[in-house]
Amino acid sequence: MKSSRRWFLRALTAASGAVVAACRGKAPDPEPQPSLLGAPISKYGERSPFEKPARLLSQTPHLEEASSRTPLGDIEGMITPSSLHFERHHAGVPRIDPAQHELLIHGLVERPLIFTVEELKRLPSVSRIYFLECSGNSGTSWRPVPQPSAQAAHGLTSCSNWTGVPLAILFKEVGVKPEGKWFAAEGADACRMVRSVPIEKAWDDALVAYAQNGEALRPEQGYPIRLLLPGWEGNTSVKWLRQIKVVDVPVMARDETSKYTDLLPDGRARQFTFMMEAKSLITRPSAGQKLAGPGFHEITGLAWSGQGAITRVEISTDGGATWNDATLQLPVLPKAHTRFTLPWRWDGRETVLVARCTDETGYVQPTRPELVEARGVQSTYHCNAVQGWKVNGDGSVVDAAL
Amino acid sequence: MKSSRRWFLRALTAASGAVVAACRGKAPDPEPQPSLLGAPISKYGERSPFEKPARLLSQTPHLEEASSRTPLGDIEGMITPSSLHFERHHAGVPRIDPAQHELLIHGLVERPLIFTVEELKRLPSVSRIYFLECSGNSGTSWRPVPQPSAQAAHGLTSCSNWTGVPLAILFKEVGVKPEGKWFAAEGADACRMVRSVPIEKAWDDALVAYAQNGEALRPEQGYPIRLLLPGWEGNTSVKWLRQIKVVDVPVMARDETSKYTDLLPDGRARQFTFMMEAKSLITRPSAGQKLAGPGFHEITGLAWSGQGAITRVEISTDGGATWNDATLQLPVLPKAHTRFTLPWRWDGRETVLVARCTDETGYVQPTRPELVEARGVQSTYHCNAVQGWKVNGDGSVVDAAL
Repeated sequence: MKSSRRWFLRALTAASGAVVAACRGKAPDPEPQPSLLGAPISKYGERSPFEKPARLLSQTPHLEEASSRTPLGDIEGMITPSSLHFERHHAGVPRIDPAQHELLIHGLVERPLIFTVEELKRLPSVSRIYFLECSGNSGTSWRPVPQPSAQAAHGLTSCSNWTGVPLAILFKEVGVKPEGKWFAAEGADACRMVRSVPIEKAWDDALVAYAQNGEALRPEQGYPIRLLLPGWEGNTSVKWLRQIKVVDVPVMARDETSKYTDLLPDGRARQFTFMMEAKSLITRPSAGQKLAGPGFHEITGLAWSGQGAITRVEISTDGGATWNDATLQLPVLPKAHTRFTLPWRWDGRETVLVARCTDETGYVQPTRPELVEARGVQSTYHCNAVQGWKVNGDGSVVDAAL
Repeated sequence: MKSSRRWFLRALTAASGAVVAACRGKAPDPEPQPSLLGAPISKYGERSPFEKPARLLSQTPHLEEASSRTPLGDIEGMITPSSLHFERHHAGVPRIDPAQHELLIHGLVERPLIFTVEELKRLPSVSRIYFLECSGNSGTSWRPVPQPSAQAAHGLTSCSNWTGVPLAILFKEVGVKPEGKWFAAEGADACRMVRSVPIEKAWDDALVAYAQNGEALRPEQGYPIRLLLPGWEGNTSVKWLRQIKVVDVPVMARDETSKYTDLLPDGRARQFTFMMEAKSLITRPSAGQKLAGPGFHEITGLAWSGQGAITRVEISTDGGATWNDATLQLPVLPKAHTRFTLPWRWDGRETVLVARCTDETGYVQPTRPELVEARGVQSTYHCNAVQGWKVNGDGSVVDAAL
């Protein structure tokens, strides 16, 4: 029976609206299975040795000033496994003893304070599911070069259940002076990453986070504490947070002048472009994958917006001629990855799959030409153009270079 | 400055309603921090070596027929780290090659079918956040014996983002005959765990799950596929699922006759008690922990119900004399752990903390005496009584034995 499947060749329309197909064969006979006792219980589990998805490391001799990308084509659901959360480090991952680590808040405040990690954990906490995306994500898509995979092109985004103290509570404690309009957050990594942030973000939803997906932050994500600015470019969510200085104007730190600015065609640069605008991406099928054959395939992917909740994901399976609304898997949360799915029956012919999303502000994800029209091709950061995938007749999938 | 904290001694009432306190000291001076390059990017991350939370292993010489418990007093948010998800195995964790594993669906069906794991992944998927709780969780609470910790007493519950194929889709494919009223699900573990399930659960929300928190199921959670029956006792979510047989009546398998029945005072036993009723639990402070001193402490915990969403968690900090509504952290989802928080200022005197919850059906979590009144003390399973924690004058926390 095993070798004679005719699965997915016959299409049915189920009551759910899904199109599935069935295998027929002779009377089934359960296979023999292992009957020896399995492995015992354990203190801290690991994934199966058969599982191989891995972060894709950037090609550089200096793996401390580098990034690694989430295998978007392999992950499921809305939560990114912490072990596969993307990385972007400018001076490697410091090894920090949480018992020794402190957060200093000073500058234009009434009462400068130092908080230990234990003290932060005693304070009122907020727990939310938020995506985090590097503003350099999809950066190679500014030019029409073929993207080898969803992971390589767009893998600098991940989504976690974060827990931390609202920065607003800490700022109320220190007493921000009226002239305090920005704050500079500094990390404890060797390069002392510093970013300037408008103080309004502290009063809105900024967290000093200490937990991710139920456990302590992973070292690569800022252990023991990081700033978390929901919906804003990842670099501003300063990791290994060691001090926050309240200031009147941006400090113009190295990493907000030499980097993380967006060069426009007229030679000017956009600066402090914090918001990560709506993006969607089909993760399966996507470039580098291969369809096993014609018949039923589920199309699935992720959509997210720094401006709020995703309200709609449309998918075209004919290169943009016609569009269908995808199902948004619950929960659909503001500033979080939203998993979408759409049933699809592939007829075996070459075609192009593409998704586009809309968020609760009404913002619609742009095409690459629309984005280039507005910003040129030198921006490096903040590319959120739609991504098309071309399915070839043999089932292989490549970048459609839309 | 480090050794002279007066943190949490002074209480303020912030606009948020939170009560926090502040440290004052001399002008702060950031500590020296490591300036060497940190660790490079990596393919698959691990937690910090400073982090020690672990599953609590049951005390038995046979660790294959045993359980391990989630460290509820240490975890944060609503998602349980996969590595710390509770375990309950009856014959150990089998090592299964997903390329060789198959699911057979047969019995009272029109078209018996075998599905490979790859085929299941091509079908329409659903992704949801659900708790999973062993019906034996809190079993020692049937009698008023002191519980040593939240983990030891109640750690057989965890919550994950699960992805899988609705069983309804598979059942439509095989064509369940009208006389098919139950199905028997069998695992590929050495003991061939079998449970009988009413067929209505398949048409409702049962999944054949292949992913957990973004990646493949962990081996301890049924890799490569498990049944997932949201809100129902964990044992029915058969792991390492290898066959489902549609039947007309329950098969009266070993593990639904010798185990997983609830002995009542009159000698009769409740059977097929699938629903996990609403439960809440303060996880911090909880037994085995120690408050650092008087002043502000956040009270936090988890609540969940197999019948739907949690609508209310009330907390008493005076042994039940008065109650306050806790804040429910978002999202609040049906059949999922809900994280709750409440600000609290401890005056340094002995007291009892207790939480009780209400779900969307109006069901209110019972006290232990109420539950014992209805079911006696021999039930072993399905204890969802409120759990009180006594805070001693020295800050140590023990079971209040309510």
